[in-house]
Amino acid sequence: MSKYTIGVDFGTASGRAAIVDVKTGKELADSTFEYPHGVMDDTLPDGTKLGFDWALQYPQDYLDVFYNTIPAVMKESGVSPDDVIGLGVDFTACTILPVKKDGTPLCMMEKYKSEPNAYVKLWKHHAAQDKANLINEKANEMGEEWIKRYGGKVSSEWELPKAWQILDEAPEIYDEADYIVEAADWVIWQLCGVLGKNTCCAGYKGLWHNKEGYPSKDFLKALDPRLENFVEDKLNYPIVQLCDRVGGLTADMAEKLGLNEGMTVTTAIIDAHAAVPAVKITKPNILLAIMGTSTCHILVSEEEHLVPGISGVVAGGVYPNLYAYEAGQACVGDHFSWFIKNCVPASYVEEAEKQGINIHKYLRSKAEKYKPGESGLIALDWWNGNRSILVDGDLTGMMLGMTLQTKPEEMYRALIEATAYGTRKIVETYQNNGVKVDEIIASGGISQKDPMTMQIYADILNKPIKIAGTTQCGALGSAIYASVAAGVENGGYADIFTAAGAMGKLKDTVYTPIKENAEMYDKLYEEYNILHDYFGTGVNDVMKRLKNIKKSI
Amino acid sequence: MSKYTIGVDFGTASGRAAIVDVKTGKELADSTFEYPHGVMDDTLPDGTKLGFDWALQYPQDYLDVFYNTIPAVMKESGVSPDDVIGLGVDFTACTILPVKKDGTPLCMMEKYKSEPNAYVKLWKHHAAQDKANLINEKANEMGEEWIKRYGGKVSSEWELPKAWQILDEAPEIYDEADYIVEAADWVIWQLCGVLGKNTCCAGYKGLWHNKEGYPSKDFLKALDPRLENFVEDKLNYPIVQLCDRVGGLTADMAEKLGLNEGMTVTTAIIDAHAAVPAVKITKPNILLAIMGTSTCHILVSEEEHLVPGISGVVAGGVYPNLYAYEAGQACVGDHFSWFIKNCVPASYVEEAEKQGINIHKYLRSKAEKYKPGESGLIALDWWNGNRSILVDGDLTGMMLGMTLQTKPEEMYRALIEATAYGTRKIVETYQNNGVKVDEIIASGGISQKDPMTMQIYADILNKPIKIAGTTQCGALGSAIYASVAAGVENGGYADIFTAAGAMGKLKDTVYTPIKENAEMYDKLYEEYNILHDYFGTGVNDVMKRLKNIKKSI
Repeated sequence: MSKYTIGVDFGTASGRAAIVDVKTGKELADSTFEYPHGVMDDTLPDGTKLGFDWALQYPQDYLDVFYNTIPAVMKESGVSPDDVIGLGVDFTACTILPVKKDGTPLCMMEKYKSEPNAYVKLWKHHAAQDKANLINEKANEMGEEWIKRYGGKVSSEWELPKAWQILDEAPEIYDEADYIVEAADWVIWQLCGVLGKNTCCAGYKGLWHNKEGYPSKDFLKALDPRLENFVEDKLNYPIVQLCDRVGGLTADMAEKLGLNEGMTVTTAIIDAHAAVPAVKITKPNILLAIMGTSTCHILVSEEEHLVPGISGVVAGGVYPNLYAYEAGQACVGDHFSWFIKNCVPASYVEEAEKQGINIHKYLRSKAEKYKPGESGLIALDWWNGNRSILVDGDLTGMMLGMTLQTKPEEMYRALIEATAYGTRKIVETYQNNGVKVDEIIASGGISQKDPMTMQIYADILNKPIKIAGTTQCGALGSAIYASVAAGVENGGYADIFTAAGAMGKLKDTVYTPIKENAEMYDKLYEEYNILHDYFGTGVNDVMKRLKNIKKSI
Repeated sequence: MSKYTIGVDFGTASGRAAIVDVKTGKELADSTFEYPHGVMDDTLPDGTKLGFDWALQYPQDYLDVFYNTIPAVMKESGVSPDDVIGLGVDFTACTILPVKKDGTPLCMMEKYKSEPNAYVKLWKHHAAQDKANLINEKANEMGEEWIKRYGGKVSSEWELPKAWQILDEAPEIYDEADYIVEAADWVIWQLCGVLGKNTCCAGYKGLWHNKEGYPSKDFLKALDPRLENFVEDKLNYPIVQLCDRVGGLTADMAEKLGLNEGMTVTTAIIDAHAAVPAVKITKPNILLAIMGTSTCHILVSEEEHLVPGISGVVAGGVYPNLYAYEAGQACVGDHFSWFIKNCVPASYVEEAEKQGINIHKYLRSKAEKYKPGESGLIALDWWNGNRSILVDGDLTGMMLGMTLQTKPEEMYRALIEATAYGTRKIVETYQNNGVKVDEIIASGGISQKDPMTMQIYADILNKPIKIAGTTQCGALGSAIYASVAAGVENGGYADIFTAAGAMGKLKDTVYTPIKENAEMYDKLYEEYNILHDYFGTGVNDVMKRLKNIKKSI
């Protein structure tokens, strides 16, 4: 008799559920529900105006995802609730909200409905940048060891700056909140009545370490005396490991969702990280590159190393009992979109329309005719700063080699190559710091839709690249975690490697390096490296000086 | 009683005559005649196929310019031939042809009409590049002093490589030729029956020096034993100074043109250089920037200095008894045209059409809203290599500072600024090598049509820039030279300064530096300089390595 798990993937604009066959990983049905309140970056529902760089959400929308999508996939698949053995969730992060002890979000209390700081602060809420700056300043001043795990920098997107913003701007909200929680953990709590903090969010966004815990009271007090007891006041709930059973589905939820009471609900995970089992990663030291507007590079390993310039290393951050490394490129597909929007002449747009293909594809059809080195161009992929390994948002883009004969498709290709050099830099940094990279798998939109770019990546990295077998890694990954939490005794799996091996998916396509291209790209990568170090490591800080001038105007 | 002179400006596609009032410089009438054979870069008139990079002309076309335009301006102006006191000519250079002793061009002899090397080699005939390379190699190997006057490099456009190509590819033409002459000097010869080599062409294109003469026999022999006697065999006619009377109009020509026999015909000059008196330069050390697709910078001075990286210094090259310096930027307007063709999105083109303005103007309307430094961008103006002061055609373009918010108009403005930094570099190089630059005057299309660019130049150079008062500097300049050659006794002038002061023209417009812009650009120019030296002087030869890779593919 087949068994099934449900995975629910909470994105920026909508949530999506899939019901998955535990034996094969086959997705029997899926359903998407758009958040009715979407992303609030201008006003609250009652018209209250929001400040610059705010991005909020409304927590009822998340519950409505469950109420709409799970009955839908149950109905469409025809699976009996008795055969559904678990449910998992992945979520954007850091996406946090202040709540009462009973789980009520403060923003859902009548008296706080006009208070922006009572709402869910979405991952891309950037209005706590000043707090992040102060944290970084103080941490470096006080020589805090933990900041090294994050490449020396806390992002404004993370938990502490966002919580501090609540305290600073709306102390009554901060005081009224019994907890500040990740939305990921809040939805699990609503399903099974148990609140825990998942190791993935805790480690990557919450500054938590399995041995060191959270930053010290001394540090928090130095930031703001009111923050001294932040951890015991607002984070006083247990850490929960991935693949664990957090609890069983409550009677109330079981009824609303058409599932059985007591069914296993597993620990939530960050959306990107859920992709690791979904692409069939069944051993350590395989790098997953999730390639979209930006790229996130995740790798699990048995060893803990301090790798300079990566976004974080977290014990149990992706697979239990393994260290999970994360690095990132702040701008990948965004480079190409910028180019398309700003640098493609009218004649190309017309020709693409005539041929009935989109302009990305048309440009690729021209760019793919070039051999490596043929354009004479090289670029630095820093249009949105550099996340790894320089961790410097003030770096900017560079391109050189242009002549009067240079064509748009050559510059487009140079931008693609630049992002691949950036990935190679990350891979080499892992390797140079003791973290092996044995294989590479790519997921995300670019991996699925852009064979030219993937071949360029294979040539530049000089490694074969395997491709994710699904475009919906989040829901599948969440369902895989649930299958482990359910356990063998219920028809699930004993460990995540076995589960990923059975349920994860890869395409048959493998992009294999072409020898002569790889050799040429080795030479060009040397040039990239020289420029990377010249502009990125302080030899010539022209990019920062120009940015400072720009800011001063 | 008013007196008049005629100036004839021979361009790449046509010739244009103007009749000018000697007292005021007023142009009474002008007339243009397009060369019937145009530029032959594909086939000869009889269908003979030309090679790559060839560019030829047919000398009868030049005579037809005289026959058509001079009678036309005489008729239109109503001036009596008795009041026309002189005629001057400016011409593209180096534009050379092999001729017989009686002036007959070899290409006009029936037996050579199918021989490409018998025709006029136009300035932009680039098929002698291999010869130029060999000349440069040998000159540097033999430590020839004269090459330093040319920034260490002979161009393929100049006289010796072109003449050597004739010798090498068509020795019978070389042998049959009694002279090899500049077209500039040939047309003067046809007017007055006297052949001389003007100091301007001789100095800038013919490797001639007022004290050293031409390169030595030893050197020429080392190039090719058959070239040993090149100077006495093919250049055995006198050097003639600018402003001199070469001769009087022949009876035959007087009849054909409707002018008086014996009327003064003055020494020819290169077209760009004729602009100097036309923009009213009446003292040394004023820089004229002729701004078009490329920019040429000309300055006369009482002193001779060896300025590294300039295109040449020639005694009497522009004004008699003064040293004339020339420097150049290989790519100025060409940068902007490249950008318009390759980097402007369809939406901008549509909007420009909607507003009924051309796209250059539309982009300027957006770019001029930015303050210096506001774009955060900086570029190196090397899309077509660097002529002065690096003299390196293998350098390529560079731009940095791009972010996801960067707009096309910002990049366009950065390119404009880059060309202005390039000009400042030339001005500073003159100054740092003992050649004062007291004032700046601009002529050429950009100076007339693009106030934003001119203001940026004034701000970046931090000097007022005056603007040429005519768009036709060549014909006016030629007429001014003729007025000096005619002499005071005939109603002309005693010297070129006096003539230029009376007949030259400036607009009332002066672009004056805006203090705060100039201060900001001082900072940005420091950044330009660092990048200029890093990429241009061998610290990081990435541009050349990339170009070599490109060539190898």
